[in-house]
Amino acid sequence: MSQIKTVRIVQAGDKFTAEPRVESLPTPGPRDVLIKVYAASLNYRDTALLRGEYRAPTKENGIPLSDGAGEVIAVGKDVARIRKGDRVAVSCAANWIGGPYTPEYRSSSVGFTVDGLLAECVIFNEDALACIPDYMSYVEAASLPCAAVTAWTALNKVEPLQPGQTVMIQGTGGVSLFALQFAKIFGARVLAITSSDGKAAKLKELGADAVVNHSTAPDWDQEILALTDGKGVDKVLDIAGEKTIVKSAASTRITGTVVLIGFASGFGGGLPPIDILVRSLTVTGSTVGSRIEFEAMLQAMERHQVKPIIDQVFPFAEFHKAYERLESGQQVGKVVIEIAK
Amino acid sequence: MSQIKTVRIVQAGDKFTAEPRVESLPTPGPRDVLIKVYAASLNYRDTALLRGEYRAPTKENGIPLSDGAGEVIAVGKDVARIRKGDRVAVSCAANWIGGPYTPEYRSSSVGFTVDGLLAECVIFNEDALACIPDYMSYVEAASLPCAAVTAWTALNKVEPLQPGQTVMIQGTGGVSLFALQFAKIFGARVLAITSSDGKAAKLKELGADAVVNHSTAPDWDQEILALTDGKGVDKVLDIAGEKTIVKSAASTRITGTVVLIGFASGFGGGLPPIDILVRSLTVTGSTVGSRIEFEAMLQAMERHQVKPIIDQVFPFAEFHKAYERLESGQQVGKVVIEIAK
Amino acid sequence: MSQIKTVRIVQAGDKFTAEPRVESLPTPGPRDVLIKVYAASLNYRDTALLRGEYRAPTKENGIPLSDGAGEVIAVGKDVARIRKGDRVAVSCAANWIGGPYTPEYRSSSVGFTVDGLLAECVIFNEDALACIPDYMSYVEAASLPCAAVTAWTALNKVEPLQPGQTVMIQGTGGVSLFALQFAKIFGARVLAITSSDGKAAKLKELGADAVVNHSTAPDWDQEILALTDGKGVDKVLDIAGEKTIVKSAASTRITGTVVLIGFASGFGGGLPPIDILVRSLTVTGSTVGSRIEFEAMLQAMERHQVKPIIDQVFPFAEFHKAYERLESGQQVGKVVIEIAK
Amino acid sequence: MSQIKTVRIVQAGDKFTAEPRVESLPTPGPRDVLIKVYAASLNYRDTALLRGEYRAPTKENGIPLSDGAGEVIAVGKDVARIRKGDRVAVSCAANWIGGPYTPEYRSSSVGFTVDGLLAECVIFNEDALACIPDYMSYVEAASLPCAAVTAWTALNKVEPLQPGQTVMIQGTGGVSLFALQFAKIFGARVLAITSSDGKAAKLKELGADAVVNHSTAPDWDQEILALTDGKGVDKVLDIAGEKTIVKSAASTRITGTVVLIGFASGFGGGLPPIDILVRSLTVTGSTVGSRIEFEAMLQAMERHQVKPIIDQVFPFAEFHKAYERLESGQQVGKVVIEIAK
Repeated sequence: MSQIKTVRIVQAGDKFTAEPRVESLPTPGPRDVLIKVYAASLNYRDTALLRGEYRAPTKENGIPLSDGAGEVIAVGKDVARIRKGDRVAVSCAANWIGGPYTPEYRSSSVGFTVDGLLAECVIFNEDALACIPDYMSYVEAASLPCAAVTAWTALNKVEPLQPGQTVMIQGTGGVSLFALQFAKIFGARVLAITSSDGKAAKLKELGADAVVNHSTAPDWDQEILALTDGKGVDKVLDIAGEKTIVKSAASTRITGTVVLIGFASGFGGGLPPIDILVRSLTVTGSTVGSRIEFEAMLQAMERHQVKPIIDQVFPFAEFHKAYERLESGQQVGKVVIEIAK
Repeated sequence: MSQIKTVRIVQAGDKFTAEPRVESLPTPGPRDVLIKVYAASLNYRDTALLRGEYRAPTKENGIPLSDGAGEVIAVGKDVARIRKGDRVAVSCAANWIGGPYTPEYRSSSVGFTVDGLLAECVIFNEDALACIPDYMSYVEAASLPCAAVTAWTALNKVEPLQPGQTVMIQGTGGVSLFALQFAKIFGARVLAITSSDGKAAKLKELGADAVVNHSTAPDWDQEILALTDGKGVDKVLDIAGEKTIVKSAASTRITGTVVLIGFASGFGGGLPPIDILVRSLTVTGSTVGSRIEFEAMLQAMERHQVKPIIDQVFPFAEFHKAYERLESGQQVGKVVIEIAK
Repeated sequence: MSQIKTVRIVQAGDKFTAEPRVESLPTPGPRDVLIKVYAASLNYRDTALLRGEYRAPTKENGIPLSDGAGEVIAVGKDVARIRKGDRVAVSCAANWIGGPYTPEYRSSSVGFTVDGLLAECVIFNEDALACIPDYMSYVEAASLPCAAVTAWTALNKVEPLQPGQTVMIQGTGGVSLFALQFAKIFGARVLAITSSDGKAAKLKELGADAVVNHSTAPDWDQEILALTDGKGVDKVLDIAGEKTIVKSAASTRITGTVVLIGFASGFGGGLPPIDILVRSLTVTGSTVGSRIEFEAMLQAMERHQVKPIIDQVFPFAEFHKAYERLESGQQVGKVVIEIAK
Repeated sequence: MSQIKTVRIVQAGDKFTAEPRVESLPTPGPRDVLIKVYAASLNYRDTALLRGEYRAPTKENGIPLSDGAGEVIAVGKDVARIRKGDRVAVSCAANWIGGPYTPEYRSSSVGFTVDGLLAECVIFNEDALACIPDYMSYVEAASLPCAAVTAWTALNKVEPLQPGQTVMIQGTGGVSLFALQFAKIFGARVLAITSSDGKAAKLKELGADAVVNHSTAPDWDQEILALTDGKGVDKVLDIAGEKTIVKSAASTRITGTVVLIGFASGFGGGLPPIDILVRSLTVTGSTVGSRIEFEAMLQAMERHQVKPIIDQVFPFAEFHKAYERLESGQQVGKVVIEIAK
């Protein structure tokens, strides 16, 4: 295997395309690990990149996708944490081992500022790797780095979610589904809003304690208040930003927390400061998570045998279809590309 | 009901006795609540008081017992949180509403510096009261204020226990059993040590993931390490102090936490500072908890329908037998006195 | 002194007036303390109340003003923390001893839901009282409970301000001036914005490291960024809300904190969620503070001999002029009413 | 400069020696930085290593000394944070960027598990480097990485030290002197114990508010209590371990913190659990600090122009004398080796 297949981002006017390549196998440095990738998965920001809507700086002609998992096939001479044969997933920010987010981790953003996972083999510093539990397939593990870790850290933001507390999730996207599954193993109550009765049924099946259809209940904040004796939930994971934030805040208990995850509904809008003051809220932005948080999440998933919700798996040769599936907005759960079996 | 039966502490040489009395019904002040007590329960420190071994200052001729529950039968004119007819339990430190422990709460220590619950009727400021969930009997609720709140706050000490983490509990006393039940709803793994195979079976029945009999495995810290791949547990609730602390520390992962709950094995001993340094441990003393923590715990118990483990229930007239039962050390779970049905 | 002079709030259409009264001296309950008030001070919300713009519930015909200080002239039989002769100030939320804010403290909001300080004598539970240091006059102490404690807790919000960090304050109101003085004893750098060169000079005199006049520099966020090498400040205390929040956020470093203190510029506006996400900010509402925070602040003030900035002192008989002074918006520092000498 | 002078550790029976070498100039990898070292400094553990008393694993024939500073003379192609010409110091744990300590950072312990600073040129990943302020000489900067960062993080342990709080330091070693200087810029009061009136005078000169000579006042905990109105200090930085810990705990206020820094007086002893319980203490081990904490400390030092206390500076050729000076125990402040001028 001296030659490997990869995909690289190529600029095309205001947009970008993802194109297959054949390259030489890279050589690991002293603290690097060579990984045979079995699966990679997509997130909203991967499609935003192709549309030319990803605003942060990126590596020229980089390999896309932050999320993937594989087997370690070689290690550098100073590698201490990882062994050949380990089954690993890669953390989104390659040199963020632990602790709070800092801007410098942007320069090691996998799939954006450094090469990502859409390749047969990849190289990462051992600090970037989390070993995956036996019960979990590569396809499942590949679905975790961005969305699941974001959900996990959001539940821990400001103060960790406690048993008996109530959290609100929104929709059926990757982060929200992981947040639902994780909130249950925190012992919490989960309320959800979504746009259809079909999705509501799916959310209930996955453990949501109550679901509000915001298409038929546009004043969904009132429904959430009613479900919490008028008090509001302890924590909201707000996914849509512009069109949800005011009602998300109104659904939160006095002194509660709103964690902003996404901006699917637009870049505008805004929460009046008085809404934050009157309810003594804390509103905070989400920041994926460190490798240590990733490992803590894996430990919790293993104990509770949590299975990620996979929407569809595409073969490597059809990676474009995976992008299309995500663009369609029809998926429930993660869209994965299987690179090897 | 202008006359009520109570019990009061009377000095008898170096020791104390608990003696029945008949008294006038007290009158609530503007923010006070009059409670008809249905049940009260005992803790180790209640028996220590009678033996003359409770070292902190106490009210002269006070009513004993920090733990009890009952029905609100009258409220003062400025009472805002509580209504007549509410089913309530009393928080151990009557004016500790929320936040960290401070020494001043010692002056409102129920059953020690202010009158306790071993009486047909009692008066407390509304700030001291937590409403109990419907599914819970008065006998069950009376078992909670000291031991269950101590267990709950210990699991939250330094950093809250997380799903997938591992906690070690010790023995089958009140705090340890509550800690076991609560740790499970935090999504954690629970390891326990105890002194007999019978108690080990009971602990497993209640959900312990593994139990070490320290009578037959005196190097129980080695067993705990083996159960955690040599790493040690994330948190230990140390119950016995003198004879357990060194091994408790040795059983804890690097950067983990040891919460000291009790001192059942003596006032001496000691953990060498080097043991703390080498493992970068945090060792911290337990401090019951605030009323807000009590309420958070009740909310979690309700969601998960946690049933307190009750050892035995004695009628009010036989309250001395309840003290004797606790002195025997034979109980598994809480010893309760039922004052009304 | 069986009769005392007080002031009480009387409804007058949509608005309210403050009217002098003569009343009987109140009698302290078992844990209450009788205080001879020497001085009381005004805050923005006290004038908002008269204008009918204070939106939260208030006690009918209550005594106004949350802020005041005096001498203890009698104590109830169970009072333990306070002695006759102590010089004390009253904490804004009378039963908030320590820990985080919770909504229930609203029911003990001094000068709003319970009687306040604009009276010759007042009664409070001992839990509400902080002893004031010797170096501080009653007039100075009376200026602290609302504004100074708000400033202190804001500097400690999310994470305490650290030596070497940079904080931005806004204007010359009570909270901002206290925040400036306190930030200096935290060892921090203070940047300020204000509306005139005269006020800028005053802020520099009080220790501000740099001041931006936002009348002449409407893009003051750019100035603040330039003063911090383009990074932004670690923490902002936003005073005005609607018209400042967007630029406050833009002035804050990635992962920094915006503490919302007031809403002087209106109830509208709003920060787009994307602004919070892009900079990974935490935006949180201010909540005055507990009595323990008040005491910690007093201890720090004493060590550093911090002198509150007093704008003007009015005699009790002219209390209406104190309200007028505050309404004028001309004051720099606190407006105080001296009730006794 | 294709050849450089270095020092390497050589085993000699149970002990080790430090021997000069001449080596080829190393080549930086893509994220590495080549540094011309101007100064390096010694800590207690560096001499312990030579005595064979450093118990943790070390690199065979490694270059010693965790502490040093120099100028960047070349950078790898992917280096983003650091530029040629930057004046930098190296963080003790080379890949610990931020957040809490974890055991894996032991594998990048500069001067122990990876090559240290006693060389004319060294190579480090850019993540390991902190830029030093202009006002600070290389000799001064070289004194900081271990002792100063340990002091800084200790003052921030459990909860950051607050203005007006009181901290106790012990002796005149490197960590204690830095802790004294830093505690003052936190706005705190500093009490110290030491073994001679001469050292006491030095501590007072450096800003200690009160000093107890423990040679003449063996019950120094009583003196500390007397200096704090019987309450005890908020935080203790315990340096000696075995012989100090019990009195350190007795000197700490209820709910206060004891940070264990060293074990100079031995590996035995121990704090009885009851001492922790009765005072509700938190006792925690010190763990140097991350590079981000190092940078925060440098920012604070720059703002307050803090000058490290340097005991003596030796030329590179006489590096053995620097070890001897530290072994003597006579130093006040840091012992530095100047490698270039």
